[in-house]
Amino acid sequence: MADTKWPGCSRGLKAVVLDMCGVLYDSQEGGVVAIPGSAEAVNRLMSSDLQLRFCTNETQASRDKFVAKLQTAGFDISASRVFSPAPAAAAVLRERGLRPHLLVHDGLLTEFDSVDKTNPNCVVIGDAAENFSYQNLNDAFRVLTGLEKPLLLSLGQGRYYKETNGLSLDVGVYMKALEYACDLKAEVIGKPSPMFFQSVLNDMGLQPHEVLMIGDDLVNDVGGAQNCGMKGIQVRTGKYRPSDEKHPTVTADGTVDNLTQAVDMILSQRGG
Amino acid sequence: MADTKWPGCSRGLKAVVLDMCGVLYDSQEGGVVAIPGSAEAVNRLMSSDLQLRFCTNETQASRDKFVAKLQTAGFDISASRVFSPAPAAAAVLRERGLRPHLLVHDGLLTEFDSVDKTNPNCVVIGDAAENFSYQNLNDAFRVLTGLEKPLLLSLGQGRYYKETNGLSLDVGVYMKALEYACDLKAEVIGKPSPMFFQSVLNDMGLQPHEVLMIGDDLVNDVGGAQNCGMKGIQVRTGKYRPSDEKHPTVTADGTVDNLTQAVDMILSQRGG
Repeated sequence: MADTKWPGCSRGLKAVVLDMCGVLYDSQEGGVVAIPGSAEAVNRLMSSDLQLRFCTNETQASRDKFVAKLQTAGFDISASRVFSPAPAAAAVLRERGLRPHLLVHDGLLTEFDSVDKTNPNCVVIGDAAENFSYQNLNDAFRVLTGLEKPLLLSLGQGRYYKETNGLSLDVGVYMKALEYACDLKAEVIGKPSPMFFQSVLNDMGLQPHEVLMIGDDLVNDVGGAQNCGMKGIQVRTGKYRPSDEKHPTVTADGTVDNLTQAVDMILSQRGG
Repeated sequence: MADTKWPGCSRGLKAVVLDMCGVLYDSQEGGVVAIPGSAEAVNRLMSSDLQLRFCTNETQASRDKFVAKLQTAGFDISASRVFSPAPAAAAVLRERGLRPHLLVHDGLLTEFDSVDKTNPNCVVIGDAAENFSYQNLNDAFRVLTGLEKPLLLSLGQGRYYKETNGLSLDVGVYMKALEYACDLKAEVIGKPSPMFFQSVLNDMGLQPHEVLMIGDDLVNDVGGAQNCGMKGIQVRTGKYRPSDEKHPTVTADGTVDNLTQAVDMILSQRGG
């Protein structure tokens, strides 16, 4: 492990937050494939005295369906531990009296069942994948240009994610498209938004320096967590690229081959 | 005409360059609708001693088909006077030995018949409209990420254009999407690229101060022409918005209600 940087913060550690896609599994059309050893690594963390939460920008399925899908891949994770952008967005919409025009994946629609969608006064976009047709993007654009104060909420700002058959465009790409079309700046709900990380800390009742984030996305997972005062570790799975280790603005507190190695390091430093 | 600013440059003027969509016509699904008086205004310019060229970022049809479509709306314009991005791009591709992956409208494909498209080493995008599906944008993205030096050529960088049933997203929106996805900067072929305006000046053998550009797009027509040393006039038709007259960085040399009024001003100042 000569090339494994590690923050040496494990002794005071009280919780670990795990990104999901690229750390636990790789996604493929309609399903997930576990990264070898990751389900066991999750179980070891659950059996430890550390708190554990999951923080994902997944917006292709409702949280319940998403957790059920993970069950089939061997992950025994309860929905209450999973933080994802859609429930957070639904709460924001209700609090602020916003009525969204939704451009999201069909599987996500149920998350917004309780939200008034008549006469929209904002647009919400998620990782809509095939729903990102020209017609649908144009419809969202026309809603925005028809508003006195155009407001775009984006469920994450990722550039792309890895599927088993290659890289696929993520919601951030379409966020940038609408930002340019309407000359506005979107509000991001999800990683790397500080509000989103803070909601996970609040749920655990912990301070940021007590928590370690582990993810495959250097900017959104590692950098986002660091901006909140947490430590951030990158795994060399998922969308990791060697160039990440020479990134101009974000430097991980540690880089490990996979989640198994990360958990080995965490638990061994705690004498676990 | 109290609110009509005018540059007072008409006496030394040797040529006029006209933008097309929004100045001559409004587009609607599959066709064009002439802006009242514009065909006659074009004829008056043709009968004058001024040179006349047309400069469009239209990339939904080949130049020949486009000119034929304008004929049906009453415009008698020869293809040799029309400058559009696709023929310019095809020339650039051949000169630089580039083999494009094309993401363009079906109607534009014939412009690239003479270009080698095997084993692509760049991506060319135009106003592909319905062809901007998630699948097609993802395919273009994957070509770019597979290249050692990703190169994206964009046929214009417009945000949107006006159709009779509302505003529609233009190629620039998808250019920004791919720029963000691939962390690159596209090369723009078409307005407001200085090279593109210069090719029109070269064709006429004139200096920029001898030429007046008239368009409805403040940034791409007026600003682009001004950046080349030409004067730029905006018409209050097409995509014109009142906020254009208070734009933070681009100020037109004149603003007129429509092409008819612009031609009145030009010819009256010349004693025509």
